[in-house]
Amino acid sequence: MSATISDSDDGLDVKAYMVALGRRARAAARVLAASESAVRNRALEAMAATIEADTDTLRAENARDMEAGRQAGLDEALLDRLELTPERIAGMAEGLRQIAALPDPVGQVSDLAYRPSGIQVGRMRVPLGVIGIIYESRPNVTADAAGLCLKSGNAAILRGGSEALRSNRAIARCIVAGLESAGLPIEAVQVVETADRAAVGQLITMPEYVDVLVPRGGRGLIERISNEARVPVIKHLDGVCHVYIDDDADEDMAVEVAVNAKTQRYGTCNTTETLLVAESIAARVLPRLAERYDQAGVELRGCERTRELLPQAGEATGADWDAEYLAPILAIRVVAGIDAAIEHIARHGSGHTDAIITRDYARARRFVREVDSSSVMVNASTRFADGFEYGLGAEIGISTDKLHARGPVGLEGLTTCKWVVYGEGHVRQ
Amino acid sequence: MSATISDSDDGLDVKAYMVALGRRARAAARVLAASESAVRNRALEAMAATIEADTDTLRAENARDMEAGRQAGLDEALLDRLELTPERIAGMAEGLRQIAALPDPVGQVSDLAYRPSGIQVGRMRVPLGVIGIIYESRPNVTADAAGLCLKSGNAAILRGGSEALRSNRAIARCIVAGLESAGLPIEAVQVVETADRAAVGQLITMPEYVDVLVPRGGRGLIERISNEARVPVIKHLDGVCHVYIDDDADEDMAVEVAVNAKTQRYGTCNTTETLLVAESIAARVLPRLAERYDQAGVELRGCERTRELLPQAGEATGADWDAEYLAPILAIRVVAGIDAAIEHIARHGSGHTDAIITRDYARARRFVREVDSSSVMVNASTRFADGFEYGLGAEIGISTDKLHARGPVGLEGLTTCKWVVYGEGHVRQ
Repeated sequence: MSATISDSDDGLDVKAYMVALGRRARAAARVLAASESAVRNRALEAMAATIEADTDTLRAENARDMEAGRQAGLDEALLDRLELTPERIAGMAEGLRQIAALPDPVGQVSDLAYRPSGIQVGRMRVPLGVIGIIYESRPNVTADAAGLCLKSGNAAILRGGSEALRSNRAIARCIVAGLESAGLPIEAVQVVETADRAAVGQLITMPEYVDVLVPRGGRGLIERISNEARVPVIKHLDGVCHVYIDDDADEDMAVEVAVNAKTQRYGTCNTTETLLVAESIAARVLPRLAERYDQAGVELRGCERTRELLPQAGEATGADWDAEYLAPILAIRVVAGIDAAIEHIARHGSGHTDAIITRDYARARRFVREVDSSSVMVNASTRFADGFEYGLGAEIGISTDKLHARGPVGLEGLTTCKWVVYGEGHVRQ
Repeated sequence: MSATISDSDDGLDVKAYMVALGRRARAAARVLAASESAVRNRALEAMAATIEADTDTLRAENARDMEAGRQAGLDEALLDRLELTPERIAGMAEGLRQIAALPDPVGQVSDLAYRPSGIQVGRMRVPLGVIGIIYESRPNVTADAAGLCLKSGNAAILRGGSEALRSNRAIARCIVAGLESAGLPIEAVQVVETADRAAVGQLITMPEYVDVLVPRGGRGLIERISNEARVPVIKHLDGVCHVYIDDDADEDMAVEVAVNAKTQRYGTCNTTETLLVAESIAARVLPRLAERYDQAGVELRGCERTRELLPQAGEATGADWDAEYLAPILAIRVVAGIDAAIEHIARHGSGHTDAIITRDYARARRFVREVDSSSVMVNASTRFADGFEYGLGAEIGISTDKLHARGPVGLEGLTTCKWVVYGEGHVRQ
C-alpha cells in the first residue's frame, strides 16, 4: 500500500474523499456534456458577477492565507503570487467574461461526408470529461481553470497550493453560486479541500474518474506528476528557444527580432535563450546586437568565434547550450550556416519555439519543415508563441508534448473528437 | 535494476542493442521528416515489387517458422495466423501500393491566418518521429506497419512475435531494399532481431528515442504495455458495442440493422454485444429478431422482460452486460426508453461504438450528443466503425483512448501539428 492511499494525520480517509470527488465529477461531466452553450455561458457570467460582489470576502480570506504564509516564512515572491489585490479580483471576473464570449468548441462537426456505402461520417468535437488541474500558489488560477473547463463542457477537480486553501475555497464558493444560478450541477467544479499531499497522489492515479491532468507550476511539480500519473498529462517542460540569423538576413530586422526575442520579457518560456548566427553575417550583426544587449543589461556568453568578435562576452560552456536561463543571459554561437543551425537546435533545443531570420525563400522553407519544435517561425520573435497571440482566445498552457496538444493549448485542447455516423438503415455487406 | 535492462541469456546486451536501434531510428526520422512524398512513395512501390519478386524466399523462411511453431506445439489458430500463403504475400504488396497511393498527410497546413499583430499563424502536419509497433504472430503486419509509418514520415521500430522472427526478417530485407532503392536511410524501418522479451521492456521505456507505441494484439499484450510504458500508447481495449432500438424505430430497419450488427462478423471489436430495446416496441421486434438470430445460430441471453417475450432466451447475469463475447452470443435488455438506454451504455459500454435506431429527430440528436463513445451512430450498423469505411484509406488501429486519436486511426494518427508563424520582422510589443 503506497503513501497515496494512506489516511492523513487528521483522520480523513484521503482515498475515499478523492474517489467521492471523482464520482461526483464523473456524474456532473455527463450533465455538462449535454448542456447548452448558453447555459454554460450564463454560469460563467454569474461567477464573474459573484466574484465582483464578494470582493471583500475574497480579500478577507486571502488575508488569512497571507498571514499564515508570513508566519510559515514564505518568501516575498511566493507571497506576491498568493495575494489577491482588488485588481486581481477584477481580473478574475474579467477573465471569466472573456471565456464566456469565446465560441463554444463543443458540438462542432467537421468533415461530414457521404461514403461509398451510403453512410454519412463526420467528427464531432466533445468534452474530454473530467479535468484535474494541479497548480501552485496563485489563487486566481482557480477561477481561470474552472472557467476554461466549464466552457469546454468538462467537469473540473482543482487542487491548488495548500498555502492558498482559504482563498481557493472562497473563490470556489463564487463558482458554485454561478453554477447554481444557471441550473448546472455544483459538482461541475470541485476544489480539493484537504491540504494532505496524498490527495494529489490519488487524483493522478484514478483514470476511471479523471480523463486528463493539467499541472500548472514549476518543473519539479510537473515532472513529479508526469512520472507518477496513470492519467494522461498535458504538460509543459523546458523552453530553450533559438533565433538563427541566416547569412542572408536583413541586418536591421535581425537585430530588432533578436533583441525583442531576448529582452521583451526574461521569465517566459518563449524567450530566446540561445542566438545562432551564420558565420558570414556575424561580424556585421554581432557588434550591433552586443550594444543593444548591453543597454538592456543582458549578459552574453559566447563560443570562441563569438568572443573574437565580442571580447566583452563571457565564455559559453557546454551547459550553456542546454540552459533555460529565464534571466538576462544569452548564449551566442557562430555557426557555418543553416545545416549547423538546424543540427544545433535538434541537439540542444527543447522543441518549444525556434525562429530563423532570412530573406532566402528556400532556407525559410527548409527551416520551417525541418525544425521539429511546437512553434517554428520565420522573421518573427519567439515571444509570439502564445495562445492569445495565436488567436486561441484563451490558453490552458503550452504543451511540450507531441501527442494530442502541441504548443499553445486553447479550449480545443480540453476537447476530443468522436465519430458520428448517420444512416438510413445501412448495414455492412 | 529491473529485468528489462538485464542481459539476455545468450550474452546480448539488450539495453545497448535497443538504444542503438533507437539512436539510428531517431537519426533516420529526421531525414524522413525532410523527405519528399514522391521519394517515400517510390520506396513503398519498390518494397511491394521486392516482396512479389521474393515470394519464394519469404515462403521458405516462413516454412521454417511454421515448422518451429509446430514443434513448439503452437495451436492451429496461431499457426494459421503465422502462415504466409502466396495470397497473403500478394496482399502485402498490394497493401503497400495502396498506401503509396494515399494523399501525404505530412506538410499540410491548416488555418493559416493573419493575426492582429501582423504575424501569419497556421498549423503544419508533421510526423511524430519514431513509432514502436509491437505485434503478435501475423508477419504481414511487418509490411503493413512499415508502410504506414514510412508514408507518414516516421521511422519505425517493429517488434513482432518471436515465433515469426524468420518471416519478419525476410520481410524486413524487402523493406530495406525498397528504402535503399529510393535513397532513404535503411534505418527508417528496423525489425528487432532478438527474441529476448527484455527488448520490449526497453522499447517501451525509452521516450528519448520512441515517440509513440502502437501495440497490435490481444488485450493481455496491450494492458501489459500500457501499464509499463513511459512512452504514449495508442491502444485498443474492449469493444462492448450496443444497438438501441427506440420506441419510434422503423421495425424493419431495426431488425435488419440489429441482425447485421451482431451477425455480419462475430470476432470484430465493432460487433454489437448487447441489444437494448425500448419497452413499447419490444413485443413487436423481439420475436422477429429472435427468429433471425436463431437462423444465424446466435445464443440469446435476456433480462427478465426479454425472457417473458422470448422464453427460449437464456438468463443474462450481471457479467453479461459487460461482456465482449466476440462470439455468436447476444445480451438483450428491455429498457424504459432513451434515458435508460443512455444510462446503460454509460455504465456498461466500453466507449467504442453505439447506435440508435429511431425515426425521432430529437432523440437521434440526443443520442449522438450524450453517448460518449468513439463512434456514435444513427440508423446504421455498428460494424461500420472502421478506418476503411470511414474513408481513412488505411487503419493503424482503433483507439479506445480519448486523447490524440479516438476511434479508427488512419495516417493522421501517426502525425501531429506544429505551429508555423510567418512574419516580416515582427516583434512583440
